[in-house]
Amino acid sequence: MQSWQSGPRIGVMGPSFCSPEIYNLAREVGFHIGRQGAILICGGRSGVMEASARGAKEANGTTIGILPGESAAEANPYIDIPIVTGLGNARNAINVLTSQAIIAIDGSYGTLSEIALALKCNIPVVGMKTWRMIPPGGKPPQIILADSAEEAVSAALRACQLGCNRK
Amino acid sequence: MQSWQSGPRIGVMGPSFCSPEIYNLAREVGFHIGRQGAILICGGRSGVMEASARGAKEANGTTIGILPGESAAEANPYIDIPIVTGLGNARNAINVLTSQAIIAIDGSYGTLSEIALALKCNIPVVGMKTWRMIPPGGKPPQIILADSAEEAVSAALRACQLGCNRK
Amino acid sequence: MQSWQSGPRIGVMGPSFCSPEIYNLAREVGFHIGRQGAILICGGRSGVMEASARGAKEANGTTIGILPGESAAEANPYIDIPIVTGLGNARNAINVLTSQAIIAIDGSYGTLSEIALALKCNIPVVGMKTWRMIPPGGKPPQIILADSAEEAVSAALRACQLGCNRK
Amino acid sequence: MQSWQSGPRIGVMGPSFCSPEIYNLAREVGFHIGRQGAILICGGRSGVMEASARGAKEANGTTIGILPGESAAEANPYIDIPIVTGLGNARNAINVLTSQAIIAIDGSYGTLSEIALALKCNIPVVGMKTWRMIPPGGKPPQIILADSAEEAVSAALRACQLGCNRK
Repeated sequence: MQSWQSGPRIGVMGPSFCSPEIYNLAREVGFHIGRQGAILICGGRSGVMEASARGAKEANGTTIGILPGESAAEANPYIDIPIVTGLGNARNAINVLTSQAIIAIDGSYGTLSEIALALKCNIPVVGMKTWRMIPPGGKPPQIILADSAEEAVSAALRACQLGCNRK
Repeated sequence: MQSWQSGPRIGVMGPSFCSPEIYNLAREVGFHIGRQGAILICGGRSGVMEASARGAKEANGTTIGILPGESAAEANPYIDIPIVTGLGNARNAINVLTSQAIIAIDGSYGTLSEIALALKCNIPVVGMKTWRMIPPGGKPPQIILADSAEEAVSAALRACQLGCNRK
Repeated sequence: MQSWQSGPRIGVMGPSFCSPEIYNLAREVGFHIGRQGAILICGGRSGVMEASARGAKEANGTTIGILPGESAAEANPYIDIPIVTGLGNARNAINVLTSQAIIAIDGSYGTLSEIALALKCNIPVVGMKTWRMIPPGGKPPQIILADSAEEAVSAALRACQLGCNRK
Repeated sequence: MQSWQSGPRIGVMGPSFCSPEIYNLAREVGFHIGRQGAILICGGRSGVMEASARGAKEANGTTIGILPGESAAEANPYIDIPIVTGLGNARNAINVLTSQAIIAIDGSYGTLSEIALALKCNIPVVGMKTWRMIPPGGKPPQIILADSAEEAVSAALRACQLGCNRK
């Protein structure tokens, strides 16, 4: 039977306010996601979420915004399909579960919660200019570090293919 | 600024087990949704959810499946983009909020909860072979009744355009 | 091992605005819940939720309010322990799952969604002046009807003991 | 009007598997929470959650377990009132919002997500043998460090009283 399932789903997680430098980085990450035929999953709002969706649309990609509020009107203009959860921060768990790998950019607390949930659910995490986390007495969690947007997206796609048996 | 937002989002709500007659009806509803360029929102699983997604794909539409479990593998094969919530029945609220109008088909309890939530959120409800609900001493809620799949989809699209100021 | 688990958990579901007659009925229901040593579960806000919690406290019962918003300040003054979900209407699923039986009073859409979810989860439903629901071609769902507050609470407690193997 | 609201709500967040040393520490933390007349909020399961609830009951405290699954049977035996969410990891957001301050013990990914959400929601965090988090180029988040169980609980109670205007 033909599968209608479209491309791999890559989540980009980052803050709703960010510097121009981070905005450009997130936009470039989104561009490579779109160019590779992957689907961009994000939180649907401003900052890194907007930038990554904007980049993905510039490469003719598809963008999904998983919104915390109760109205699709809060989506940024680069979101193709808003998912309206009404769950507040609890929607972060959906961002993560829906992604086959995530790219975490910059350092808000929301992003930190998404990194943590991804690690818990065995969803690969690529990090760019983001949190370092040091557990009590143990070794740091396995986060793939990337230096460029292109490298981050390649690493995320590779991680999807190798690791995500359960998805 | 150009809006990337794609077509209107019509939810089809119905049980995961159904008769062949209901299956065919849901498939026809999905077909008209796809044909009209609308996006199909559903729960992503079997029965009415599968039938409507199948119909939408037969008309080259786009299908979103908002899943209750923690794995995209539970999506039916006609889902383009699975949204993995892990929320169980609480995800019904997301099905409803994400839709600009819903078409309720047949009579499971999950469908009844989705009709109720849609009415609560002022999201228009089109009903086909579904629940009648009689409040204590009041008049029944406003559900648009439709006799054919084509009529149901037209009514849902009209309701989207007129009613959904907040979306 | 000693179980610390306290009494049975009875949910009272009803609208946040109601007539004085319904308010008094809900207060009496709450009173009997408290008197029987059961724990009152409710949505934590005004109307039927407030009345039932008030009644339970008048009988020295324990009251839990499962709130839709992000602040405990929205709890009514008769709630012992607010559970702050931030989930909006999706919290209705938690009201239901946390209860071993529910008593549905009056007829809002939120209450209808809670009746539907309880039926779906095999949680017994006692109804007072509430919705009648007629499925397509089938027989109505099994709702226990009660004429007085005392009878409703007795029926709910009996249903807890008999039916809820899974809880 | 008399407020029925009971004591302050302190969340204890930690993994479901832990060493005996951590178990004893969490039990002692729970004991001091109960002794101070505060209500223990936790995830309701094994490990640190069980230990803290056990300690709280040893001091005649009240314990609330906010469970991820769909059955109250998964609560540990020291939980007075199970809240059955069915939300999986998304329930972590409720643990945090329901607490007026949290004490994070040890270093699982779930705990890290709860620390992150608490910081996001301006809920004070006391840390014991837990994660250190270093943001990109910024200063670490404000976590109150405590050396003993008693000190941790005192710090959490102080933080509740000072900081939580919104709760």
